[in-house]
Amino acid sequence: MTPANPAFDTVADTADVTALLERGRALSAPVLRAAVDRLASPMDTVAAYHFGWIDAEGRPSDGDGGKAVRPALALLSAEAAGAPAEAGIPGAVAVELVHNFSLLHDDLMDGDEQRRHRDTVWKVHGPAQAILVGDALFALAYDLLLELGTVEAGRAARRLTTATRKLIDGQAQDISYEHRERVTVEECLEMEGNKTGALLACAVSIGAVLGGADDRTADTLEAYGYHLGLAFQAVDDLLGIWGDPESTGKQTWSDLRQRKKSLPVVAALAAGGEASERLGELLAADAKSNDFDSFSEEEFAARAALIEEAGGREWTAQEARRQHGHAIEALHAVDMPHRVREQLTELADFVVVRKR
Amino acid sequence: MTPANPAFDTVADTADVTALLERGRALSAPVLRAAVDRLASPMDTVAAYHFGWIDAEGRPSDGDGGKAVRPALALLSAEAAGAPAEAGIPGAVAVELVHNFSLLHDDLMDGDEQRRHRDTVWKVHGPAQAILVGDALFALAYDLLLELGTVEAGRAARRLTTATRKLIDGQAQDISYEHRERVTVEECLEMEGNKTGALLACAVSIGAVLGGADDRTADTLEAYGYHLGLAFQAVDDLLGIWGDPESTGKQTWSDLRQRKKSLPVVAALAAGGEASERLGELLAADAKSNDFDSFSEEEFAARAALIEEAGGREWTAQEARRQHGHAIEALHAVDMPHRVREQLTELADFVVVRKR
Repeated sequence: MTPANPAFDTVADTADVTALLERGRALSAPVLRAAVDRLASPMDTVAAYHFGWIDAEGRPSDGDGGKAVRPALALLSAEAAGAPAEAGIPGAVAVELVHNFSLLHDDLMDGDEQRRHRDTVWKVHGPAQAILVGDALFALAYDLLLELGTVEAGRAARRLTTATRKLIDGQAQDISYEHRERVTVEECLEMEGNKTGALLACAVSIGAVLGGADDRTADTLEAYGYHLGLAFQAVDDLLGIWGDPESTGKQTWSDLRQRKKSLPVVAALAAGGEASERLGELLAADAKSNDFDSFSEEEFAARAALIEEAGGREWTAQEARRQHGHAIEALHAVDMPHRVREQLTELADFVVVRKR
Repeated sequence: MTPANPAFDTVADTADVTALLERGRALSAPVLRAAVDRLASPMDTVAAYHFGWIDAEGRPSDGDGGKAVRPALALLSAEAAGAPAEAGIPGAVAVELVHNFSLLHDDLMDGDEQRRHRDTVWKVHGPAQAILVGDALFALAYDLLLELGTVEAGRAARRLTTATRKLIDGQAQDISYEHRERVTVEECLEMEGNKTGALLACAVSIGAVLGGADDRTADTLEAYGYHLGLAFQAVDDLLGIWGDPESTGKQTWSDLRQRKKSLPVVAALAAGGEASERLGELLAADAKSNDFDSFSEEEFAARAALIEEAGGREWTAQEARRQHGHAIEALHAVDMPHRVREQLTELADFVVVRKR
């Protein structure tokens, strides 16, 4: 992978990271599939479609199930506590179930019609199934953890609950910001911390908790995951405007088309100066425009150029680097095997350098 | 309360039951309110509207929060295990949160516009808030239980998960049955056991588990709750057709208007004979009719009369008595204080005799 990336100049050791992601997928996928198979019909089918295991007609499919960063982190998390990677599997799958519960519901709430290059569940199977299967995945996550019946599983479930509540808070903020003309950089970061940081943080602590780590260790690992999540989201926000459609699977200027108040936009508006003011006027007019849907490529490109001119692109790239730095720093506070520390570092590099 | 009831000839000692329900409400309401206050804005407001604490304009309201049978049961459950009623409070509130999570989502999925004499949340605050606040109540239920941090709380949470999964299965069945011409009595009972029995069962075991009861005791208490739930639902199905609108807060022939395949309908269709066949033909024609929404009182009354003539009303009343009997029987298998056994018996009588 060439690092034609918005935030970093280095090339991450992607071979190692690819192997880590692959291990996360390989160890968690059978357990995830078995869990989904527990669902009553037709929820099992709808879930299988969502995960990309079958297509809309029910035929087996080799769909894109996402990067699977969370399972990889949950397994490393167990190893960080000195336990075997396998101890993290129920945590990896529980986090993945909660992540996908939120995707199912958010896509419906936001009216998003595409995810991972395919029609979203509510488009294919209707809103009721999107709600119901989301609920079912949520409940399944707790089933998987609590059936372990250990004190550690109870603690892991508690952390998952805290993360899930933040996830829901973040979605509530996201929805409420849509109706506001201005959102501060701090509000945007808080929302992204809730929507992306909290569950990534949980992924990095849940394996350790299942492996017997104390709360202090788990909290420190969560700090790494939280900053990693914010770095991840900053890069996502850059890709949402300047990403290559071939890599991202989204339209050009995707976030601008959706009028998303993402970090580059919010930072550009907060920067002040001529470009910032011109951008503010343009976006305020866009919000009232009836022609927005028929805007040309050039009109979006003009907005993207203003965001860049006002410094929103550079600020967000710096923010990704800042959060990456905080994440690596948090790792220093935990005693863990050398190899695990290296791999968590490589994963952090990968998240900031990734093209999609 | 006069027992102009469909299933029973006796008058339950309603003074005692009223006191029990009142205690359940009084002990659980402050904890429920404090839990809802934890939600971020505007979810706290939407939830407060759903629970009837404020009206659609945000003014304090003394709305109908439901019968609160579940909290009353959860407190008795703790006492059944020899613990103080207070030990059941987190369980009572967690069950109430899950119950209301399911109401929020089901009302949206089913397109129901009225609940407890008021507009439903999705009508007032929109579908996204109904989904989001439902999710938040679900997560809050686990927060409340797992923050106790005890082994018992983990076991209680596990039982709540099992019940929630059945609740979701029941809703999935309910949705799929809508599109089918025929549903068997067994399928209908299974669906009602999932939708109503499972969470009532959990209410009756969760207090005991929090109070230190072993799994056998909890399972037996769940058997009582499960049969109680089925009795409750059978009475609900009778009231859904023949209930007095003033008491039920629903329209006349409410379930017939909604084309619900409830127990009396399904039993009447399964009975065979002339009235049964005539009913089957009518309902099959109704399913294809474009005029259904403009049907007169008389047309629904004619269908109700056929259901009764085919024996569906009497069969359902008998089913309520059968399930009531099983519930009382299950109580014999648990050793518990005499007063608690009497109160659980009175509650069972009340559920079958209630007019709404």
